[in-house]
Amino acid sequence: MQLITSILEMQQLADKVRNSGNKIGVVPTMGYLHEGHISLIRIAKQNSDFVVTTIFVNPTQFAPNEDFEKYPRDLNRDLAICRAEDVDVVFAPDTSAMYNSDFLTFVNVEKITSILEGKFRPTHFRGVTTVVAKLFNITKPHIAIFGQKDAQQAIVIKKMVKDLNFDINILIGPTIRETDGLAMSSRNVYLNNDERRKATVLYQSLKFAESEIIKGQTNIDTIKSVMEKMILEKQIFTIDYISFNDAETLEEIKIADLNKSILISLAVRTGKVRLIDNIVVKR
Amino acid sequence: MQLITSILEMQQLADKVRNSGNKIGVVPTMGYLHEGHISLIRIAKQNSDFVVTTIFVNPTQFAPNEDFEKYPRDLNRDLAICRAEDVDVVFAPDTSAMYNSDFLTFVNVEKITSILEGKFRPTHFRGVTTVVAKLFNITKPHIAIFGQKDAQQAIVIKKMVKDLNFDINILIGPTIRETDGLAMSSRNVYLNNDERRKATVLYQSLKFAESEIIKGQTNIDTIKSVMEKMILEKQIFTIDYISFNDAETLEEIKIADLNKSILISLAVRTGKVRLIDNIVVKR
Repeated sequence: MQLITSILEMQQLADKVRNSGNKIGVVPTMGYLHEGHISLIRIAKQNSDFVVTTIFVNPTQFAPNEDFEKYPRDLNRDLAICRAEDVDVVFAPDTSAMYNSDFLTFVNVEKITSILEGKFRPTHFRGVTTVVAKLFNITKPHIAIFGQKDAQQAIVIKKMVKDLNFDINILIGPTIRETDGLAMSSRNVYLNNDERRKATVLYQSLKFAESEIIKGQTNIDTIKSVMEKMILEKQIFTIDYISFNDAETLEEIKIADLNKSILISLAVRTGKVRLIDNIVVKR
Repeated sequence: MQLITSILEMQQLADKVRNSGNKIGVVPTMGYLHEGHISLIRIAKQNSDFVVTTIFVNPTQFAPNEDFEKYPRDLNRDLAICRAEDVDVVFAPDTSAMYNSDFLTFVNVEKITSILEGKFRPTHFRGVTTVVAKLFNITKPHIAIFGQKDAQQAIVIKKMVKDLNFDINILIGPTIRETDGLAMSSRNVYLNNDERRKATVLYQSLKFAESEIIKGQTNIDTIKSVMEKMILEKQIFTIDYISFNDAETLEEIKIADLNKSILISLAVRTGKVRLIDNIVVKR
């Protein structure tokens, strides 16, 4: 396994790999890898010949009041994980190499980035699409793998790829969960024992909503108010949103209709920690 | 020579050309080709193995009040010119293929797009960078050639390429002029005989400014007021701007200093026609 920090070196190697007829799969991450990331690496291994994992805590997707500084980092641990997973290249550039002091260019997907996460993190997705466009131009992949955990991000990136004609196939890997249901996230290390225990309610509330819809409940507001009650009962969470949306267009859903897949997503805060989770009820 | 209208077909051919070890040069145009475009095609021929000329009148770089509808188009004439120049592929997609009805993604270079042309055409450069990013992802070039006639566009595109890490070398071809000095432009067909004759004053005023700076005049305002007088004397022009800027950063220059290259640029209107021109005084 090779560790590359130079953008130019990564581009030259990507060209070489492509010219030798091999298929490049990239897994963009912010590091501090967990089983969720590993599952994406394995999807990349299965669907390409040469796997690049990028590790870059991207400053432009954090707002000034967010956790960029304290976001967990452990490159040596990440490298060991990638080596064990037989990753071909870890691309881990410096922030200054990715963003010059005179950086001025942003990729922005409109409309679908101003709801849900985008409502609470207004500059977040612009940072995500910008860095992903950069990473695509640097690693030159045939396929790229993202996690369903960040459901809106997956939809936004697919839209960017389609609109800007990136010739890259986007694969979405399922959310990986702890045995008690909590969605894996690098940010889970922020939780204290009490918060960690109570955070299981997020997935429980999503599963409740799913079962209600499958049972035939069509009134979203009724389902939502039970979910809110479940979460608020724990006494430690404030709710940013609980939302039901068309899983492809992100249009808000008021009446459940299983002719369309429904994305049920939520975001909550406890102390300084913000957690998100989602589930898709398939049509 | 091949005419391609399908995005997928163009991408597949570009892959094939790249995999066979050949270097792709792209010349993005809005068609209605003149000697200026031809000079860019020749630069592409000299610097690559496989030349793609794109012909696409890009709606997103025109404001609603601008000349998108009446912009001159003649694909058959353009194809004949490209064939004569031994272009390998003309890529001429339909508008609907480039912009779906649900198109939402834009590439935007900040700051340097809000001055000069950007001040008078606020959404113009966003349209340019978006379509150029798309065309880069579709034609997958090693090099791309743009004209110095659109000086600010050249700087903005270089900035986008650098910031988003497009692995593409941008070459800028010199402005090609009619024998009386008027910069070639597809929009020159809009001019009536009187306007066409008087439009020579634009280049004359730029050459005057250049000679003043070379002679040692450092007071930009003094030079500018003579240029204004020269142009307004023709009785048919209104001036959008006459501007002196650092040719690399586009910072405005108040005092001429030949330690930096100076971009002198202007835009005027006569009737419904808008003309731009520029000259660079090299350090």
